[in-house]
Amino acid sequence: MVGKVVRVMASGVFDILHLGHVYFLEEAKKLGDELIVVVARDSTARKLKHQPIMPEHVRVKMVEALKPVDKAILGHEDDMFKTVEEIKPDIIVLGYDQVFNEKYIEDECRKRGLKVKVVRLGKFTGSDLNGTRKIIGKIISAYAFQKEIESIERVNDNENNRDS
Amino acid sequence: MVGKVVRVMASGVFDILHLGHVYFLEEAKKLGDELIVVVARDSTARKLKHQPIMPEHVRVKMVEALKPVDKAILGHEDDMFKTVEEIKPDIIVLGYDQVFNEKYIEDECRKRGLKVKVVRLGKFTGSDLNGTRKIIGKIISAYAFQKEIESIERVNDNENNRDS
Repeated sequence: MVGKVVRVMASGVFDILHLGHVYFLEEAKKLGDELIVVVARDSTARKLKHQPIMPEHVRVKMVEALKPVDKAILGHEDDMFKTVEEIKPDIIVLGYDQVFNEKYIEDECRKRGLKVKVVRLGKFTGSDLNGTRKIIGKIISAYAFQKEIESIERVNDNENNRDS
Repeated sequence: MVGKVVRVMASGVFDILHLGHVYFLEEAKKLGDELIVVVARDSTARKLKHQPIMPEHVRVKMVEALKPVDKAILGHEDDMFKTVEEIKPDIIVLGYDQVFNEKYIEDECRKRGLKVKVVRLGKFTGSDLNGTRKIIGKIISAYAFQKEIESIERVNDNENNRDS
């Protein structure tokens, strides 16, 4: 007898890909046979977090380029359960920092006739550079540092010009 | 008769992954059966371009997480042909903006007893956000804009305080 294919669903913004995303999706895939990833629309990302650097059509292609991902699709703007009804997952996986409540999701799925198990994964600790905000912070720090150096150099140049 | 496995080698810094990288590696993979990607060391990246945002041990794992990539390794610091001798590729693929000369690479490989064909790929035009520098530029613009808004708000606050 061949067992039923276990379908796992994960979701997120996936703005600038980093090792935390890869780890999350690898662990998600291990829970079943196929992994469908729902990538947040730009409008949803703005509501949940902030304006993404990469537009939604880029983010969905980047996620689908990752080995553990069987399919990546864009979510609905207004109702996450519309997408759940379309995908009909057996398991919904949540990242350590995703704010959804496990029981709420299971209850809402049951109301729609879907038996879904919600699994929350742990935080990735393998690298100190594991969040999009941290990557953006690092870029901005480097930029601010460079601006500061330039302003010091300008002051020095002006002083040198006065001396000469 | 089973044909020989055609091994393709590609290389680059692969700092913040974007669609240009994915497209480049997908096209590279199509040229053969297996794709080995050589990821530049941090020291090499500094010499060629600039200090990378992501450290080398992260960049190599990110590249290996992409579907077209069979294996990703870090390059040698000093001599690219050491890596070529280790990988023994049939094809070396170059991106549209990689400065190496095709004939120089083929000649240097021949000196080392390796018959290598060098193939240069075209530029990816499917997205306006296809380079790491562009992504960094977008982050910095958003940051500079935010700082400007904050400084305008500070001026307004000061004026309002004076009025009251």
